[in-house]
Amino acid sequence: MIDFSLTERQLEIQGRVTEFIRDKIIPRENDPRQGGHGPQDDFRRELNALAKAAGLIAPHVGEEWGGMGLSHVEIAVAFEAAGYSPIGPIAMNCSAPDEGSMAMLEKIASQAQKERWLRPFASGEVRHCFAMTEPEGGAGSDPSMLKTVARADGEHFVIDGRKWLITGAQGAAFTIIMARVDGSGEKDGATMFLADMASPGIRIERVLDTIDSTFAGGHSVLVFEGLRVHRSQVLGELGEGGRYAQVRLAPARLTHCMRWLGLATRAHHIASDYARTRHAFGKPIGEHEGVGFMLADNEMDLHQCRLVIWHTAWLLDQGRRAGTESSMAKVLCSEAYFRIADRCVQILGGMGVTHDTLVERIFRELRAFRIYDGPSEVHRWALARSVLKGR
Amino acid sequence: MIDFSLTERQLEIQGRVTEFIRDKIIPRENDPRQGGHGPQDDFRRELNALAKAAGLIAPHVGEEWGGMGLSHVEIAVAFEAAGYSPIGPIAMNCSAPDEGSMAMLEKIASQAQKERWLRPFASGEVRHCFAMTEPEGGAGSDPSMLKTVARADGEHFVIDGRKWLITGAQGAAFTIIMARVDGSGEKDGATMFLADMASPGIRIERVLDTIDSTFAGGHSVLVFEGLRVHRSQVLGELGEGGRYAQVRLAPARLTHCMRWLGLATRAHHIASDYARTRHAFGKPIGEHEGVGFMLADNEMDLHQCRLVIWHTAWLLDQGRRAGTESSMAKVLCSEAYFRIADRCVQILGGMGVTHDTLVERIFRELRAFRIYDGPSEVHRWALARSVLKGR
Amino acid sequence: MIDFSLTERQLEIQGRVTEFIRDKIIPRENDPRQGGHGPQDDFRRELNALAKAAGLIAPHVGEEWGGMGLSHVEIAVAFEAAGYSPIGPIAMNCSAPDEGSMAMLEKIASQAQKERWLRPFASGEVRHCFAMTEPEGGAGSDPSMLKTVARADGEHFVIDGRKWLITGAQGAAFTIIMARVDGSGEKDGATMFLADMASPGIRIERVLDTIDSTFAGGHSVLVFEGLRVHRSQVLGELGEGGRYAQVRLAPARLTHCMRWLGLATRAHHIASDYARTRHAFGKPIGEHEGVGFMLADNEMDLHQCRLVIWHTAWLLDQGRRAGTESSMAKVLCSEAYFRIADRCVQILGGMGVTHDTLVERIFRELRAFRIYDGPSEVHRWALARSVLKGR
Amino acid sequence: MIDFSLTERQLEIQGRVTEFIRDKIIPRENDPRQGGHGPQDDFRRELNALAKAAGLIAPHVGEEWGGMGLSHVEIAVAFEAAGYSPIGPIAMNCSAPDEGSMAMLEKIASQAQKERWLRPFASGEVRHCFAMTEPEGGAGSDPSMLKTVARADGEHFVIDGRKWLITGAQGAAFTIIMARVDGSGEKDGATMFLADMASPGIRIERVLDTIDSTFAGGHSVLVFEGLRVHRSQVLGELGEGGRYAQVRLAPARLTHCMRWLGLATRAHHIASDYARTRHAFGKPIGEHEGVGFMLADNEMDLHQCRLVIWHTAWLLDQGRRAGTESSMAKVLCSEAYFRIADRCVQILGGMGVTHDTLVERIFRELRAFRIYDGPSEVHRWALARSVLKGR
Repeated sequence: MIDFSLTERQLEIQGRVTEFIRDKIIPRENDPRQGGHGPQDDFRRELNALAKAAGLIAPHVGEEWGGMGLSHVEIAVAFEAAGYSPIGPIAMNCSAPDEGSMAMLEKIASQAQKERWLRPFASGEVRHCFAMTEPEGGAGSDPSMLKTVARADGEHFVIDGRKWLITGAQGAAFTIIMARVDGSGEKDGATMFLADMASPGIRIERVLDTIDSTFAGGHSVLVFEGLRVHRSQVLGELGEGGRYAQVRLAPARLTHCMRWLGLATRAHHIASDYARTRHAFGKPIGEHEGVGFMLADNEMDLHQCRLVIWHTAWLLDQGRRAGTESSMAKVLCSEAYFRIADRCVQILGGMGVTHDTLVERIFRELRAFRIYDGPSEVHRWALARSVLKGR
Repeated sequence: MIDFSLTERQLEIQGRVTEFIRDKIIPRENDPRQGGHGPQDDFRRELNALAKAAGLIAPHVGEEWGGMGLSHVEIAVAFEAAGYSPIGPIAMNCSAPDEGSMAMLEKIASQAQKERWLRPFASGEVRHCFAMTEPEGGAGSDPSMLKTVARADGEHFVIDGRKWLITGAQGAAFTIIMARVDGSGEKDGATMFLADMASPGIRIERVLDTIDSTFAGGHSVLVFEGLRVHRSQVLGELGEGGRYAQVRLAPARLTHCMRWLGLATRAHHIASDYARTRHAFGKPIGEHEGVGFMLADNEMDLHQCRLVIWHTAWLLDQGRRAGTESSMAKVLCSEAYFRIADRCVQILGGMGVTHDTLVERIFRELRAFRIYDGPSEVHRWALARSVLKGR
Repeated sequence: MIDFSLTERQLEIQGRVTEFIRDKIIPRENDPRQGGHGPQDDFRRELNALAKAAGLIAPHVGEEWGGMGLSHVEIAVAFEAAGYSPIGPIAMNCSAPDEGSMAMLEKIASQAQKERWLRPFASGEVRHCFAMTEPEGGAGSDPSMLKTVARADGEHFVIDGRKWLITGAQGAAFTIIMARVDGSGEKDGATMFLADMASPGIRIERVLDTIDSTFAGGHSVLVFEGLRVHRSQVLGELGEGGRYAQVRLAPARLTHCMRWLGLATRAHHIASDYARTRHAFGKPIGEHEGVGFMLADNEMDLHQCRLVIWHTAWLLDQGRRAGTESSMAKVLCSEAYFRIADRCVQILGGMGVTHDTLVERIFRELRAFRIYDGPSEVHRWALARSVLKGR
Repeated sequence: MIDFSLTERQLEIQGRVTEFIRDKIIPRENDPRQGGHGPQDDFRRELNALAKAAGLIAPHVGEEWGGMGLSHVEIAVAFEAAGYSPIGPIAMNCSAPDEGSMAMLEKIASQAQKERWLRPFASGEVRHCFAMTEPEGGAGSDPSMLKTVARADGEHFVIDGRKWLITGAQGAAFTIIMARVDGSGEKDGATMFLADMASPGIRIERVLDTIDSTFAGGHSVLVFEGLRVHRSQVLGELGEGGRYAQVRLAPARLTHCMRWLGLATRAHHIASDYARTRHAFGKPIGEHEGVGFMLADNEMDLHQCRLVIWHTAWLLDQGRRAGTESSMAKVLCSEAYFRIADRCVQILGGMGVTHDTLVERIFRELRAFRIYDGPSEVHRWALARSVLKGR
């Protein structure tokens, strides 16, 4: 039965996260231990400690692994509130790419793998990186172009390849690698492997400079040269990597939408406050329709995005795959948030292009979201195909 | 608790209306008894008889007055399905402006007024017109400019004024008039009156030609010259007309969104079928991204609009005024539907500019919706004010 | 040397056409002899007579054939001024599709063909239709799908096929037919033929109802059944029809842009006047930024379109093909004009959806322009290819 | 007479600048002596030396002051070619804000002032800053809010105030200050003053971090505390500062459009090359319409902007003020360039958000242009007023 009310538990979580972000996180936003590649590790650990003290660590992970065990709708509420600060999700250990991989590990990893890699991961003790995307000529929007190869060698695989734009590699404790298995004697094809970053044969070639600056560890070029991994490090089954990537991506796309809903709301609040108090041509600038209409459009965009997110989260809670809906959410939210951020920059005028408010940073972060997790064009193409297949 | 599932009753209503429209109404869409000013009265009555036979008349009116007594969410479901044909809502006696006025009368009219005006209205025996908007210099987007005057004269009022763009006047049995009471000895100000169209002193000056062609009776210029109405014809209380207009408008805006969601979906289905079957440059045109992306955008627009409508309907079912939400829904839906219709015209190419499919007509209808019930600009201005008032 | 000044001759032409439209044509715009399919023939002839009297007939045709013999830049100036009224180009015998075909005949036809068909055409004595587009499955955006066939039979060809959306067929004296020659013994392929509409074997199946209503004769479905044409009726050479279509189209696209620049300007002037004089919320509506910004955007769109047109016309005057530039002009202008018309409807509010001003009609005409002469998608695709071919 | 051809001289300048940028400047783009606040001074001087050697210094300044003495149309051609590299205009000493102030000084300054300030300025020996914009509550889009005060004190003025977002202050040799004269005994009001940055009473409070990173010296907060300037340092006349600001701004807005046309073209070329060579889903990504259409839109945007710039430059060469046209150019170009840059980021996908190509930097630079020199909203408002004043 159609219902848009939050349960008491959801309201309680929402209230608690909101308060935590307001009281503990926002006051730390200007900590100097952040740069172009996210927070330094000691700062990240301090933030995690605050979240743990507030009982707000890893909302999306099962309680047995140290998380809060929330449903997708509850996650929607919690992540939006967390995302109100760019460092909120880092504090609560629910930022990308870690959050999506934790969820995937919980579904796919063996018990032993979970003990070894998920438990310290969920607690914030370690970070990871997800090594899928490849440079020019390799796997990107088109995953069939995967070039990294894992050659079977007895009880081991030997992995060679180059990965690119790998978020969080710098400072990660382990990595999940997507590689094409060759000659396994069993099932070949795209496969995921777990490997400690300290393993011989893993090298960070360089950390890329990028338009965004919030992801812990930034984005790197990662090289595998003769990396040996044991069969026990295969995640799930051989040849199922492509399917797992989808298992990971559909909700991961959506959690991005949730967190960045909070961030877009933050930009809107900053711009609204400015529009209320800054005067020009005889009145607050918000009373000029040129500015006021942008505020109205922001409100409408935020409203729609929240509903779209809740709907998809509810579908996931019903056990549905929600691939189409999460694609739609990804395109709608990423484009709406960018419009919002762009309008906020414009409302702030000269102030909007400086680092003196968060808006400039939010604008840069949100630009990237139109590309991460599949650019709009790839999703529109998939949606078109599903329309053509017919009703 | 967040829930997007329809109840069995809602699914039953949805199924029944969908079937009714498909089997009884769509086959009659090309009946020649329609023109630039909607269906002729005998055709309308035939359609109403079909809806009555199917138990689908006046879904929004209480059962005691002959309707189906649906909640707002149920109305959302029923109206969307009805709107899939441009003449569906006319058949089910839930088209504008009648539908909004029935709902208002049910809330505000006296028992005697309801017996006299609402009962035959709900059954489809008669139509009405709502005489509010005035020509140049009078009440339009800015209702404070109301010029039509009702002068108290003992137990009567004498009404003089000119109304413009009055939907359905041609062929209406009665009208609801918005006039400024002057010298009532009681409360002056904007007031609503009920009057039979056959009364001396009411004259249809001319029927306007307009871009749309679906509204029964079209849109007219209506003149009141010394129209005498008895005090018993005051709807509700003196001086409360402005407030009642809002009571009428907030849900009426939303029901427009509901019906036209069906119509926009119809256009999208026509365009999708065309894109699947029409070939150019070696493949179905829908497989060209230039076309396919338009289909994807249509899907996303329809998806968002449905959620926004359901949310606002749910708020109304909770007894909330939902003024801001229905303003947002009005802007979002009217602009999204127009984009959809515009894309469908483009997908159809030359076919899209002809009357050979419904799309051309839908395009014209939906253009007008960006103006009816308050143009986007008036709603954006109101939304901006509410943002500036602060959170 | 970059120069944006009009010559004295151009200023004189511009002044003369402007005056003619203002004094002779606009006062006749409401003549009842117009309907959904353009002006009736007697009305058209009256308008032509006025233009002849003013020395303003067929500006684009050589003086030896009865026209004004203008250059492309001069045509740009004259057509913009003519297009300020929807019936201006009809009056001056420079409306589509006649204008484009006159230009093509002048370039390609034999002397005998010119005497027979071009001379009475240029003077306005007769109209024609250009029979290229075919229904579903035939030639449209993709001309390679041409289905109409001309079978060689001695000194004759026998033509069979169905054409669709053929502008001006109703009331035309002759037609130019695009057909695929089969078995000519010489060069096969797409070929153009001239034929009198009165010939046995030509039948107008029906006149389509369309969103636009200005083209003389409307748009029809035209059938050729065993139409016999003599070899002397081949226009130009066998198998060259595709090339001639391009010869016709590149300038014809541009003249559409010219005429409709005038019409878009007309809508903008009507909306500007309204915005200056209509009050709401305490001031002229144009002083509300929501309206004022639309006026500003109209100004900017008109400004850009004029420059783009002048540039392409100048290229044509230099003897350049200007295919890419006329494609760009077509997309830019058709989309800009539609935005302008759409804004004007919105500025006029309720008035904008009625026939009480020309704006509603202009809006409908301009919607069709985004499809006529190749929809935007086909031009964007061609432009993309030219970018990819490299600089 | 309408003409879009470049003269031989213009072609020669264009060729020479293009070659200079290609051979001398682009190879130096990755010089490490650049950061978030533009090039270091030694690097700037090296670039200037290269331009001087090529005879390409200060194209907009009269030859008697060391420049090339070009007309506005010639400047358009030269600046577009220079702007193809972000450091091209810096090399040729024609970047903002210096370029606009040189032009203003040449028009307004006394001979003595020119000798003292313009000559070393034009040669690139020194840079300057233009101190007009003030923080919150002061002069920004609304210049009437000017708060900085110059109090007359005999032969001197004493200036107090705070300026904000002052481009190039760091490293500037002198500044032009806009201040409100109070009690001059003559004409009060907004007035411009020339002052060396080394003067006591001038202090750079801080250098702002901003979204852009190309302007030499970045953007600073500048404080005047009891700054004493002699009457000979008044630029032009007392009370004429507002008018001079307009004299400076109309062409300065346009030169921004010129330089950034080059930069937008650069982004488009990078994206086109990428679209040609990067494969996905079985073909070069540019052959997917989703990407190809973006390339087509870029071409059209660049085309229109160039024409609008040339037109306004030509007007300025005719001695016209061209205030409306330069406002239109500013809005049209800044918005088009941003769309172009945004599309280029999207085409490049993951590569587009990294610093590995120039596109990410160009995107950030161009976002700021929608605010610098008056945000779009202020220009739209001015354009609306001019429409309302009537034709």
